Amino acid sequence: MDYVYGPGRNHLFVPGPVNIPEPVLRAMNRNNEDYRSPAVPALTKILLEDVKKIFKTTSGTPFIIPTTGTGAWESALTNTLSPGDRIVSFLIGQFSLLWIDQQQRLNFNVDVVESEWGQGARLDILESKIASDNAHTIKAICIVHNETATGVTNNLAKVRKILDEYQHPALLLVDGVSSICAIDFRMDEWGVDVALTGSQKALSLPTGLGIVCASPKAIEASKTAKSLRVFFDWSDYLKFYKLGTYWPYTPSIQLLYGLKAALDLIFEEGLDNVILRHKRLGTATRLAVEAWGLKNCTQKEEWFSDTVTAVVVPPNIDSSEIVKRAWKRYNLNLGLGLNKVAGKVFRIGHLGNLNELQLLGCLAGVEMILKDVGYPVKLGSGVAAASAYLQNNIPLIPSRI
Amino acid sequence: MDYVYGPGRNHLFVPGPVNIPEPVLRAMNRNNEDYRSPAVPALTKILLEDVKKIFKTTSGTPFIIPTTGTGAWESALTNTLSPGDRIVSFLIGQFSLLWIDQQQRLNFNVDVVESEWGQGARLDILESKIASDNAHTIKAICIVHNETATGVTNNLAKVRKILDEYQHPALLLVDGVSSICAIDFRMDEWGVDVALTGSQKALSLPTGLGIVCASPKAIEASKTAKSLRVFFDWSDYLKFYKLGTYWPYTPSIQLLYGLKAALDLIFEEGLDNVILRHKRLGTATRLAVEAWGLKNCTQKEEWFSDTVTAVVVPPNIDSSEIVKRAWKRYNLNLGLGLNKVAGKVFRIGHLGNLNELQLLGCLAGVEMILKDVGYPVKLGSGVAAASAYLQNNIPLIPSRI
Amino acid sequence: MDYVYGPGRNHLFVPGPVNIPEPVLRAMNRNNEDYRSPAVPALTKILLEDVKKIFKTTSGTPFIIPTTGTGAWESALTNTLSPGDRIVSFLIGQFSLLWIDQQQRLNFNVDVVESEWGQGARLDILESKIASDNAHTIKAICIVHNETATGVTNNLAKVRKILDEYQHPALLLVDGVSSICAIDFRMDEWGVDVALTGSQKALSLPTGLGIVCASPKAIEASKTAKSLRVFFDWSDYLKFYKLGTYWPYTPSIQLLYGLKAALDLIFEEGLDNVILRHKRLGTATRLAVEAWGLKNCTQKEEWFSDTVTAVVVPPNIDSSEIVKRAWKRYNLNLGLGLNKVAGKVFRIGHLGNLNELQLLGCLAGVEMILKDVGYPVKLGSGVAAASAYLQNNIPLIPSRI
Amino acid sequence: MDYVYGPGRNHLFVPGPVNIPEPVLRAMNRNNEDYRSPAVPALTKILLEDVKKIFKTTSGTPFIIPTTGTGAWESALTNTLSPGDRIVSFLIGQFSLLWIDQQQRLNFNVDVVESEWGQGARLDILESKIASDNAHTIKAICIVHNETATGVTNNLAKVRKILDEYQHPALLLVDGVSSICAIDFRMDEWGVDVALTGSQKALSLPTGLGIVCASPKAIEASKTAKSLRVFFDWSDYLKFYKLGTYWPYTPSIQLLYGLKAALDLIFEEGLDNVILRHKRLGTATRLAVEAWGLKNCTQKEEWFSDTVTAVVVPPNIDSSEIVKRAWKRYNLNLGLGLNKVAGKVFRIGHLGNLNELQLLGCLAGVEMILKDVGYPVKLGSGVAAASAYLQNNIPLIPSRI
Repeated sequence: MDYVYGPGRNHLFVPGPVNIPEPVLRAMNRNNEDYRSPAVPALTKILLEDVKKIFKTTSGTPFIIPTTGTGAWESALTNTLSPGDRIVSFLIGQFSLLWIDQQQRLNFNVDVVESEWGQGARLDILESKIASDNAHTIKAICIVHNETATGVTNNLAKVRKILDEYQHPALLLVDGVSSICAIDFRMDEWGVDVALTGSQKALSLPTGLGIVCASPKAIEASKTAKSLRVFFDWSDYLKFYKLGTYWPYTPSIQLLYGLKAALDLIFEEGLDNVILRHKRLGTATRLAVEAWGLKNCTQKEEWFSDTVTAVVVPPNIDSSEIVKRAWKRYNLNLGLGLNKVAGKVFRIGHLGNLNELQLLGCLAGVEMILKDVGYPVKLGSGVAAASAYLQNNIPLIPSRI
Repeated sequence: MDYVYGPGRNHLFVPGPVNIPEPVLRAMNRNNEDYRSPAVPALTKILLEDVKKIFKTTSGTPFIIPTTGTGAWESALTNTLSPGDRIVSFLIGQFSLLWIDQQQRLNFNVDVVESEWGQGARLDILESKIASDNAHTIKAICIVHNETATGVTNNLAKVRKILDEYQHPALLLVDGVSSICAIDFRMDEWGVDVALTGSQKALSLPTGLGIVCASPKAIEASKTAKSLRVFFDWSDYLKFYKLGTYWPYTPSIQLLYGLKAALDLIFEEGLDNVILRHKRLGTATRLAVEAWGLKNCTQKEEWFSDTVTAVVVPPNIDSSEIVKRAWKRYNLNLGLGLNKVAGKVFRIGHLGNLNELQLLGCLAGVEMILKDVGYPVKLGSGVAAASAYLQNNIPLIPSRI
Repeated sequence: MDYVYGPGRNHLFVPGPVNIPEPVLRAMNRNNEDYRSPAVPALTKILLEDVKKIFKTTSGTPFIIPTTGTGAWESALTNTLSPGDRIVSFLIGQFSLLWIDQQQRLNFNVDVVESEWGQGARLDILESKIASDNAHTIKAICIVHNETATGVTNNLAKVRKILDEYQHPALLLVDGVSSICAIDFRMDEWGVDVALTGSQKALSLPTGLGIVCASPKAIEASKTAKSLRVFFDWSDYLKFYKLGTYWPYTPSIQLLYGLKAALDLIFEEGLDNVILRHKRLGTATRLAVEAWGLKNCTQKEEWFSDTVTAVVVPPNIDSSEIVKRAWKRYNLNLGLGLNKVAGKVFRIGHLGNLNELQLLGCLAGVEMILKDVGYPVKLGSGVAAASAYLQNNIPLIPSRI
Repeated sequence: MDYVYGPGRNHLFVPGPVNIPEPVLRAMNRNNEDYRSPAVPALTKILLEDVKKIFKTTSGTPFIIPTTGTGAWESALTNTLSPGDRIVSFLIGQFSLLWIDQQQRLNFNVDVVESEWGQGARLDILESKIASDNAHTIKAICIVHNETATGVTNNLAKVRKILDEYQHPALLLVDGVSSICAIDFRMDEWGVDVALTGSQKALSLPTGLGIVCASPKAIEASKTAKSLRVFFDWSDYLKFYKLGTYWPYTPSIQLLYGLKAALDLIFEEGLDNVILRHKRLGTATRLAVEAWGLKNCTQKEEWFSDTVTAVVVPPNIDSSEIVKRAWKRYNLNLGLGLNKVAGKVFRIGHLGNLNELQLLGCLAGVEMILKDVGYPVKLGSGVAAASAYLQNNIPLIPSRI
């Protein structure tokens, strides 16, 4: 049943799915239950409240949908928009590209704003579009908070500021798949209308839950949005919320208990501490990359991502060889370069339930692989740079003080 | 984390989600993996071949979609049909009703053929519609193989016979959610074009996989079907099948390994033996109901379901009280009566990885509950009737002979 | 890895090892930990306090030893007695016999008081021995609270009464392996000096912990007892208790967490409710046996055991055939007759985390097996008798009211 | 239930209990079974054969005892020796000291040969004792293969050579607790009479199995050995081996299946490859220690241990502070210095199911801790030294080539 066994623990450093902590594995190790008996609604009620905390919203309405991030995207779009609606969408890497592809296939009029891969969303262009859209033809802004393919984090507060400045009513739809629970995200403060994430990312669960949160304005929009949806229709959820049974169709019992355990861990650590931990992991990784003499795919510090780092390899090296070798020799999983950056970057995911020594093990591995493929890295250099920073910044584990 | 603990094992006799066998729980007790490394495609390749066996198809193309049965329905419809298409659909209980609701919301022209709840699909009416449809305006027949709300199994061979007799090209779309892997189902032999099931039913897994199988004719239809779909679009799967990476978006690693374990158990027992076991469980349940002096909601033997039995309670009793009491006093979960039969029937699910002594424990519980709620049942009568049959029919466990 | 797979859940009705509840399986599903870091002592401290509750002692000292019941016996004897010491020991079945064998091999002077198998300890003989032992040559009374081979529960309060009446200082050593946590046991009130149980019995854990509790008098005796012991020496434990590190050698991390979960379940249900549940299960079983026209191996009601029932089969039937058939055809595990009652009785274990419907499933199975082997049982008769009693006596599950 | 949660994975680098691989956790995630039904003996039979392979014996008789290493010691001694027997035993660290303490408490006449801690057994003294023991008063040589407290591996081949040279019949009893399955060990070739290990060491299981293997000569000795033993008596096992039921008392079902899984992993990797992997891990650790400018407690290369490295800290540093800090800040568990080397060394366990990147993460952690406590380490230096060696020596994972 394990097709490719290697001794020791697998070092999982793709930007999702990520490592599941033991308490979550334990919580999911259970038989099915009848989701119509009182226990499951009682649990769901708690979960819906708890989930709002990771979105930093009090007014939003969460939907925990048995789907993936791709389904969560579709849920966000089809519930709030109508075919033909003009939306501004930023193409900055493979995942924003895939979302845009979905938007186009769903028949929206997508106004694509493209950046060079490795750069953030062109908010200057957004501003000019918003400024000139007195007729409010733009119905929504679609933006990934963190582009997983390039390790670029966009500035959402600034997006909100632009919309506010021009009092533009466009909905703000945010893909937070590789940010929420890891990078500072504030749904209410930033006036995000729909935010979404997937369970297998910073929540550190298996794949299977698309978690979507809708602002009151988004809920209002859903009443008139004409896009066709059934499986993803929020109105079915809202109907069952009112009934107190919560589920229009069968949820995964295991993932619900797992989500409870995952959220409990996050709240025990403290969401802000979780975010600080990711900042440490991101910073340490970037310091290592620098020490290796390699470039971060992300071109400016303002866009640096604390959940994934795409590392540019020298032209004579094929980054996919690095990924293959990591797996074949070191039991290490790194992320491939995708599409435009295929062969040119490899990615280190550093999100979810992960600590500093795990990351240093990964970085030590990357160094050896770089040497394997002929890059003249000084072994230990990246680890040294990362450690120097970490040794000054890791806090004591609160429960152990 | 367990909100409503009761001593001993929960007796789960709803018609899904059903009991998960220990080997499957074990297989799923694992960390995430990188689904882009070679191990997951290798596993997927095996799964896609294995899954075809439970559909009894060699020519079909399976899709293992991270969704529920409701999503599988949507996948079946939107990939093969275009808005406005006329489809004949049979309303015989709550689940066929929900599917029809979906069909209507997806803008098909649904020609609903209704039966009294407790009766099977009106195939006589189908025949007359087919016979008169020389223009082939009917694009698809949608039918549940087994209606979970009433415990009615439809005769699919007969549907095929009707279509063949009139050489009608309508697609045959079958909801096999509560039949496949439990009730005899033959995709190729019966010329089913799309068949589907959910992981939490007879496969005895957690919820999370909608498994859909498409005939070559259905695949062909998908090339021209104009219904909008993105998440559920087969073409994305087919593209990744060709690439050998298989997944257009992230699958649940745990469910893939769980599916492998579940299928292995089914193949070890033998699919035909699994079906025979369900026949024993169904027969035993019906004999108990008869012994209690109660009526089966299913009105004729030809429709008897081997996966769920809906038991009609006397008019002075509210069946939902039975379900509540089962849970509160006996740690037993029975199915509620739904919609038209709410309060009038309770349901015993007897599908999945279940054996005869588990069922007899349930039946003994139902007897006590019937007495609790004032029905003058003779305690032991149902168990006696069921046992008399079972004692004559249970085979030795092959691995223990 | 599962050598003899059978569909559905295994019905485990041997009197140990018993079914492990899911929350306990979950708690044990974990990696190893460093038992010298602060977490494990903190857990151990809680466990030692909690364990005293199931012995109903406040003054006793518990030892959680990585061993089995056989090791726990040896611990009880060697820590409190010296070679050549006279001990009165009751032979009433296979397990008391094995303990006596151990006592003799450990070079004690064992004064064996034998009963017919199926009868309790001859306390009348004990009384006469105590009455005449003015010289206090008897150093200890060794008695099984519940003889697992015959389903006989001895009256410990009466033993204490006899000792008190003659102010006899003999230590009272009690094997509570198949009683503690299931049958009323009161260490302090009954003046028990050493009591012991095993994790795989009513605690519903895997095998691996021998739990021994010593009264202050037993601890005092351990200071002068000359029996050789090292692995089982209490003094090593006491030394580490004082140090606050608790463990003289490596404990099973998994079993410690499992024990915590198991005790939490028992305390949530309430120890007295657990005992009442076992009384219901025992009574129901005996009523079934009576209805089948069979005899309980236990000859008088005063000795009836609420954790195991040994059922006498008619002379023409070999009880081991019943046990074999149960396993081969019904996925049911019953206990064999042992030694003197081999072939003559089979045993139904009804202890641990078990509820009434599980038991009724087992009883229904036994009925079919009896028929299989040619005994003219009326199918349903035992279940009916048991149900009639249970339906009047099962309480609502408190967490679900 | 998790008293001292820290984010990310715990880095467990004590020399036992060690990390349990996921396939083993999965195998143990199961309900109890009846150990008297045919499945458990069938499994046991396989295990007894498989276990012999890790001892490299074909003629030995294995005993899988529900106990710890301390119990395994007692089993080895009491089954082969009689009180008063003269045994030569080597005191080279805390664990050999504890074994000697046990030997003395068991009333053997222990001829202790002491070494400075950090040195190996004084085989020169052994030789002189053997040479002069024409009367064969020495009944056994007791030696730890690997002293876990100091990281010293003794040369067992040489011990055999000495005994052979003088044709001395003393039994050779070997504690292989921290060597077997990790350091080259050859029971038959080296004429070891009793060898033993514990499940929580290189086998990478939970604590709970003491695995003892006896040569034909040891089995012969057990027939006349007069040491008192009951729980640990091999004769009970041998009796049940003959009966084919194998177990004199209840085994842990979970550990048996776990042992099967653990052995399967070892055989899949290849025992010799497992040993080579430990050699790599040991070498890498020693190179790091050297790079840090610290000393290995082990004084000569011939004694270097591939399973544990005791690192000597400078006099101004308390090594227990290092261990505390590792746990409190880095979620890393290191081994304390024990007894004579308390405060002076900390230990890095590098045994069991562990790979190189895990070790490098640990080494990076140790570097930061060294800096934390004021030792002027150059961050990255140890990792660099270890990596340089590893990058040249790690083989491809065979299943992934």
